Amino acid sequence: MKKIINKPENYVKEMLEGLYIAHPDLITYTADDLHCLVTANKREGKVGLATGGGSGHLPLFLGYVGKGMLDGCSVGDVFQSPSAEQMLAVTKAIDSGAGVLYIYGNYNGDIFNFDMAAEMADFEENIQVLSVVAGDDVASAGPSAPGEKSTRRGVAGIFFVFKCAGAAADKMLPLEEVKRIAEKAAANVRTMGVALTPCTVPRVGKPGFSIGEDEMEIGMGIHGEAGIRHGKIEPADQITDEMLDKIITDLPYTAGNEVDVLVNGLGATPLDEQYIVTRRISMYLAEKNIKVHRFYVGEYATAIEMAGISISVLKLDAELKALMEAPACTPFFRQ
Amino acid sequence: MKKIINKPENYVKEMLEGLYIAHPDLITYTADDLHCLVTANKREGKVGLATGGGSGHLPLFLGYVGKGMLDGCSVGDVFQSPSAEQMLAVTKAIDSGAGVLYIYGNYNGDIFNFDMAAEMADFEENIQVLSVVAGDDVASAGPSAPGEKSTRRGVAGIFFVFKCAGAAADKMLPLEEVKRIAEKAAANVRTMGVALTPCTVPRVGKPGFSIGEDEMEIGMGIHGEAGIRHGKIEPADQITDEMLDKIITDLPYTAGNEVDVLVNGLGATPLDEQYIVTRRISMYLAEKNIKVHRFYVGEYATAIEMAGISISVLKLDAELKALMEAPACTPFFRQ
Repeated sequence: MKKIINKPENYVKEMLEGLYIAHPDLITYTADDLHCLVTANKREGKVGLATGGGSGHLPLFLGYVGKGMLDGCSVGDVFQSPSAEQMLAVTKAIDSGAGVLYIYGNYNGDIFNFDMAAEMADFEENIQVLSVVAGDDVASAGPSAPGEKSTRRGVAGIFFVFKCAGAAADKMLPLEEVKRIAEKAAANVRTMGVALTPCTVPRVGKPGFSIGEDEMEIGMGIHGEAGIRHGKIEPADQITDEMLDKIITDLPYTAGNEVDVLVNGLGATPLDEQYIVTRRISMYLAEKNIKVHRFYVGEYATAIEMAGISISVLKLDAELKALMEAPACTPFFRQ
Repeated sequence: MKKIINKPENYVKEMLEGLYIAHPDLITYTADDLHCLVTANKREGKVGLATGGGSGHLPLFLGYVGKGMLDGCSVGDVFQSPSAEQMLAVTKAIDSGAGVLYIYGNYNGDIFNFDMAAEMADFEENIQVLSVVAGDDVASAGPSAPGEKSTRRGVAGIFFVFKCAGAAADKMLPLEEVKRIAEKAAANVRTMGVALTPCTVPRVGKPGFSIGEDEMEIGMGIHGEAGIRHGKIEPADQITDEMLDKIITDLPYTAGNEVDVLVNGLGATPLDEQYIVTRRISMYLAEKNIKVHRFYVGEYATAIEMAGISISVLKLDAELKALMEAPACTPFFRQ
């Protein structure tokens, strides 16, 4: 895919410079490092929420820093984890005495670096850090046994975890409570995606894999991780049904449940197609007697310029529903 | 480009069904016709604002119907004008006695149908309709002589016209005043785009034109209309400068001016690249001593899945600035 960029090695730096220029009312950076993004509206006494991860997924991760959601984000190079030092700098900047909760996707590099950052924050800075690792992608691994660590990747569904935890922190709840809520949201969200085209990391300059001219890959990850089925492109309704079958039976979501649904474009797929999928999801869930509280449609977590869509479903209870409805104002999400 | 769709002939119908499902609090339709989209929150006594145009440009046009912006939109098939009857149905539904203002892009099919709708509204329904036709694309034709009709196409800059006129109507200003403001915004906005890839109309099933593997087309229209220069892809900064040179000298925008800037993705181009362009625009305008009041970055007006970007600049005065800052809540734009 052709790109409007300067030198590939400056891709993330220049993207970040543009972001700070465009959103000075919402975000800034700390430690003289563009990769250490923090809110411009720190609230004293509030639990700090931090995330982090590789670039190439805008608006994920950094785009959800703002009022009612996250307080900081360490930003890595494309598809690469930021360093422990960068996460520590973010942690120090956003802590205001109430502790910090990390919420991030289940990737080894991130876990390694952010665990180290949490330890440094504790030992060197006396900041209490707790962590919630989100793994919502049902295509990436089977469900984990009770008490076992999930091996599922974190994908677009983390938006729901950010939103619920962000609203909880905004209510000035204590760290343990915010963590409980983040874990509850993470435990109740499932995601699955389909990719039609690969994506190109700017420094690499060519796609890391290929998908045939008339083919799709169901369950592909947001870095191009292999999916669960490769085949001819099918009609949107059929693709949607296949993804929902996997999602719905996994938690499971059952008749009488109420859910929020995120229909997420992976990059190059137009909104029109996302709404065509929305229509089918609505029909599918109605048939299962699962009630949709609200649809979120648009690009919430991308894979650079990959064509494709993911569907995330969050099972609601009264607590999560109220948190999802709370106001938020970030560069990429407002309600 | 591969698509997640069902039958191509149902593309717009199913997209619209998905939209109404996702945004029941903001939009609905009239005349039993999905193509006649109107606000779900009609305000009595307010001037009604209607737009219309072909599909394939989401969030343009219909995505800006909501509080503080537009009241209705007639929706055509992909890249095709809606009918006069559809625009008339929208007009009837949104009029509440204060008259209706049409704001739409400068395309012959739309002008023909919407002029007819305006006449029918006047003669048959006794609704006063005025029209503002936006033509902001500096690449599409030279500037028009005073008093002469512009032959420039309307593109992403119409967002600014919607926003200013919408805020004016929201202040309960009378029809003539809302029209004056829409005309003022339209007169002070200029846009230029660059395309890297073509787009595919679903019914046609293949791209309507091609752009070479390492080439771009500067000035291409949002339906693939020929641009002003075809050439090898250049670095983002150079492309940005070339587009800004044309935009800035056209109005012209001069030292001391204050502007709002829209950096618009045409479909397949990631936000990262839009921010890289934002960065350069900021540097370019600072050098010219033109002050940016606010950047808007994202997909505001697309050409299905075209890769590319457009830049729109709105020259502000105190009146337009206040209107741009007013709140709005639509499916695709909130502030």
